[in-house]
Amino acid sequence: MNTIEYLIKKLKVLGITDFFGLPSDYNFNIVSAIEDNPDINWIGCTNELNAGYAADGYARQKGFGAIVTTYGVGELSAMNAIAGSYAENIPVIHIVGAPSEEEFKCGKTIHHSFPNKEQETFMKAQQHVVEASAFLTKDNLKIEIDRILKVFIKERKPVYIAIPSDIAITDIADKKTDYDWISDTNNLETVIKLASDKINLASNPVILGDILVKRFGAELEFSEFVEKSNIPVTNFLMGTGLINCDCKNYIGTSFSKYLNSGVNKLLKETDCLISVGVINSDVNSYGINLPYKINSHIAIYGTYTYINGKIYENVKMSDVLRGITKNILTKKYDEIKKETYYSPVSPSKEPLNSNFIYSRLQDYIKSGDIIIAESGLVPHGIFAMQLPPNTIIHSQLLWCSIGWATAAALGICVANPQARIIIVTGEGAHQVSAMEIGNFFRFGFKPVVIVINNNGYTIERVLSGIPDAGFNDVMQLDYPKFARSFSGDVWSARVCTEDDFDRALRVTQIMDKLCYIEAVTSASDIPDMAKMFFDLAPVYEIKLNKKQTEKNLTLTNSVEYETNVHTSIHDLDYDETEDETEDETEENVVEADEEENE
Amino acid sequence: MNTIEYLIKKLKVLGITDFFGLPSDYNFNIVSAIEDNPDINWIGCTNELNAGYAADGYARQKGFGAIVTTYGVGELSAMNAIAGSYAENIPVIHIVGAPSEEEFKCGKTIHHSFPNKEQETFMKAQQHVVEASAFLTKDNLKIEIDRILKVFIKERKPVYIAIPSDIAITDIADKKTDYDWISDTNNLETVIKLASDKINLASNPVILGDILVKRFGAELEFSEFVEKSNIPVTNFLMGTGLINCDCKNYIGTSFSKYLNSGVNKLLKETDCLISVGVINSDVNSYGINLPYKINSHIAIYGTYTYINGKIYENVKMSDVLRGITKNILTKKYDEIKKETYYSPVSPSKEPLNSNFIYSRLQDYIKSGDIIIAESGLVPHGIFAMQLPPNTIIHSQLLWCSIGWATAAALGICVANPQARIIIVTGEGAHQVSAMEIGNFFRFGFKPVVIVINNNGYTIERVLSGIPDAGFNDVMQLDYPKFARSFSGDVWSARVCTEDDFDRALRVTQIMDKLCYIEAVTSASDIPDMAKMFFDLAPVYEIKLNKKQTEKNLTLTNSVEYETNVHTSIHDLDYDETEDETEDETEENVVEADEEENE
Repeated sequence: MNTIEYLIKKLKVLGITDFFGLPSDYNFNIVSAIEDNPDINWIGCTNELNAGYAADGYARQKGFGAIVTTYGVGELSAMNAIAGSYAENIPVIHIVGAPSEEEFKCGKTIHHSFPNKEQETFMKAQQHVVEASAFLTKDNLKIEIDRILKVFIKERKPVYIAIPSDIAITDIADKKTDYDWISDTNNLETVIKLASDKINLASNPVILGDILVKRFGAELEFSEFVEKSNIPVTNFLMGTGLINCDCKNYIGTSFSKYLNSGVNKLLKETDCLISVGVINSDVNSYGINLPYKINSHIAIYGTYTYINGKIYENVKMSDVLRGITKNILTKKYDEIKKETYYSPVSPSKEPLNSNFIYSRLQDYIKSGDIIIAESGLVPHGIFAMQLPPNTIIHSQLLWCSIGWATAAALGICVANPQARIIIVTGEGAHQVSAMEIGNFFRFGFKPVVIVINNNGYTIERVLSGIPDAGFNDVMQLDYPKFARSFSGDVWSARVCTEDDFDRALRVTQIMDKLCYIEAVTSASDIPDMAKMFFDLAPVYEIKLNKKQTEKNLTLTNSVEYETNVHTSIHDLDYDETEDETEDETEENVVEADEEENE
Repeated sequence: MNTIEYLIKKLKVLGITDFFGLPSDYNFNIVSAIEDNPDINWIGCTNELNAGYAADGYARQKGFGAIVTTYGVGELSAMNAIAGSYAENIPVIHIVGAPSEEEFKCGKTIHHSFPNKEQETFMKAQQHVVEASAFLTKDNLKIEIDRILKVFIKERKPVYIAIPSDIAITDIADKKTDYDWISDTNNLETVIKLASDKINLASNPVILGDILVKRFGAELEFSEFVEKSNIPVTNFLMGTGLINCDCKNYIGTSFSKYLNSGVNKLLKETDCLISVGVINSDVNSYGINLPYKINSHIAIYGTYTYINGKIYENVKMSDVLRGITKNILTKKYDEIKKETYYSPVSPSKEPLNSNFIYSRLQDYIKSGDIIIAESGLVPHGIFAMQLPPNTIIHSQLLWCSIGWATAAALGICVANPQARIIIVTGEGAHQVSAMEIGNFFRFGFKPVVIVINNNGYTIERVLSGIPDAGFNDVMQLDYPKFARSFSGDVWSARVCTEDDFDRALRVTQIMDKLCYIEAVTSASDIPDMAKMFFDLAPVYEIKLNKKQTEKNLTLTNSVEYETNVHTSIHDLDYDETEDETEDETEENVVEADEEENE
């Protein structure tokens, strides 16, 4: 067994059966070992940033992820994705194929490197965005692989490992190693006692769960803690879905003062806040300045717990929760009413807007769906939806890197090919990584892709305070045609009215192919929650200057069809089939939609 | 005047009138200052990697370039492009909009940042790929801007400057500063004397010029040195075009043993090699192991000269060349014959291959054209062409990051909107950054884009030694349709035969719009020079397995047309116009081309 086979074997134990990346001459020994392994798949991506996002998505869904890049050019392109994984505690291993020492010291500057620099230059840059890093040599490879994997498993953060081409195929003894760690007994006992006492004494405690519960694999322990304690439980945005909405002491998502006012009041007044796995970012917390009272705060994290102003290291989240659950009494639960934001809607011929989109999506989403919500305005719409049990929303509410959703969705499809995957993104963000759509076809995935086209970076129009500044514009694309330019089976449409959006969603339910919907809204279209969050007037209008108006004329009111589909979405109710000819051109254009340029 | 206005003003002196990048909330004060300045343009790109490539291309063409990104997410995505500029000595300033100290210390983790990390975390990562970096504060801003600009101008390498949002609009006194540097008088005198003596005594000297002559603005001094000395002069690949091909002592590009054997012999035998601005990378040198004799080598770089085994720092390339030119005697020049690789070709109905493509391009290219050659196989074809005077080839032969060409071309178009710009790329590389095509339309550029589709990463098929490995495949796209999915005026075609390629090039000459040609070749198609360089058999065949064969069936023999053009390229000789209807579909498909799967 050689180094790379050894590493693959160890990663497979963690559930990594798919590796994302791009091939290149310094990593051939790595990618060919992946390809040669019958239990492992190679998922080639269009570029390394997308591969990094895909590995991140895969890890969000499946627990751990892996990306393979090449020295310099490849690894640096992936760096933003890796940094996003680092910020949000996503365990992705970044495996970099490096030149051998012999190649590196050939007396010339080899391609993908800097003149007169050391071999480890890029690792030194990468060290700022990973939890641990190693550059393998024949002398350190055993020790370093083990060290990296231990950190990977304990911290659930990205790690980096550079493997020179000759080292990848160096023999290594396959030994059994236990990479897991155990809690420090003393700290664990102390934490459990202190926390249980505090909870038992509390008169109005509240539990705040968040996404890191999932990252550290403590969902079961968390859910048992919630159930036994009978304490009101809420979540930050990314923690949506962690607590099933039919759990009796679930009081809904924490949205600061904007929704679920009972939650907000409780967080302010509680004498015991038990936060578990919280990402305390501006967007994820929806601006709440937690904790309001430091001394009443028990914060349980993956590897440590904070209590009474002190941090206890090396205690596992699952161990802490299990211990507390055993020791606590069940509280009396005074019901706090959950508020519902969206109501069922009936589509009209009115131009489409966000509030219709999310109200309609709330009805469309069914148990088992996986939704991927792009950063920007989308989360403000999506997270206010009431979801059926066993629905998952993936979003990136701390790192907030636009373009993440489209590529991360590829990884999520690979991680769960059975589920219906729904991607909701804005068109500016989508453009960042849109080429990756080609790989959904290539690998046979059929997500529903909803691209909300509001003619530019609308969130930036709002935040900049100069909505008509040219820098908020993006290049124009015929999205349905773009989707049809890949070799693959697709149904694509542009929809501009409530009616058409409604029909398009219904079409997706009978299509056994990738569905790609461009949902056109005005540049002023902002979900209500975002209007509140950004403190905008209830009727907020963006006036675009003439330049934008002209560009905008290419948008139309019509629904467009793909070329080869025999279902007209207008006839959907009758489920008729008809032979459609080339209507991907101007045939269906009704007239220019000037709605949004008034 | 505030900080950002001051910086823009200083950069404008260097010829930077266009800034590439993406807007985001931490950089609004920067991008709006750019947009508000009537002498400066904001060129919004689809993502930061592309923006970095575009700024790199702009700097290659115009001297200096600039990119603006946002903290974390934006800057890290650009990092590979910046590293490429660093490797190849391209002066690009990376301006990053950062959160203010107040924002950063709000007690929460703000979006685009890491929990519990310092504000300068990302700068520390970036420091490994730039020559100098600064994080501005109200106390250091004057000193730091000046320091950064001095390094930028002296070293002609990327620099990094993070500007917190409040600091961008802090007042600064506009003072006159001389950022240029002067040569060290003693070192300069010594170098000139030593070099002139050595050259005058030499019996068979040779000059090797390369691209850094251009980076350091020493073209004039180099050309006067070449002329006065009358010494045979050659260049590495990236230096192509530096010496006009009608210069009498020009002996052609150095191609190791593969072409221009006279050059190779001279480099081996010379008793005085004067190298000027050389990038000594494996690809750029075409594998030559220079210098063969260290003591006979005078190496003149931008800021230092190496002679007699010693480095003399702080001497300007232009000063050294000027001094040597004054002191040397004119040599007698014994003619060395330049070899021509490509001969004029007559197109046939045969399937297209690289040798036809480059032979035909050699005839197509005219004085004043700018060619952008993607890394991979393309340079092996392109650089063996004989070019007319005043033609420029841009390529990235040290960093070799695929995807560079398409996005760098945007910057080159901005830098020189008058020239005819010809992009030659492979389809695997093109996919990395292809969305940027939309911005050629948006900003009104009309390059000729030639995408050589050889069904996968052919160079990787060769280098990996496993040509049919799945990891060398890429997703399939209908390229002409893809080009037509943007809102813009385009002529696009897929060509599979010599005839059609020939006709397509002729069509581009009458089209006043972006021309996009997918040139389909077999997966085994490798330029002759590359076959020699990689030591492949003259007839090298790649056998693809069944999976690839199936995918390949979507490729056709036909030429495809764009929807709205009224010129049939088959009728080109008659210059007739006819009303074409929707022929972007299967109408023109003749039959599946199985040529390349045999």
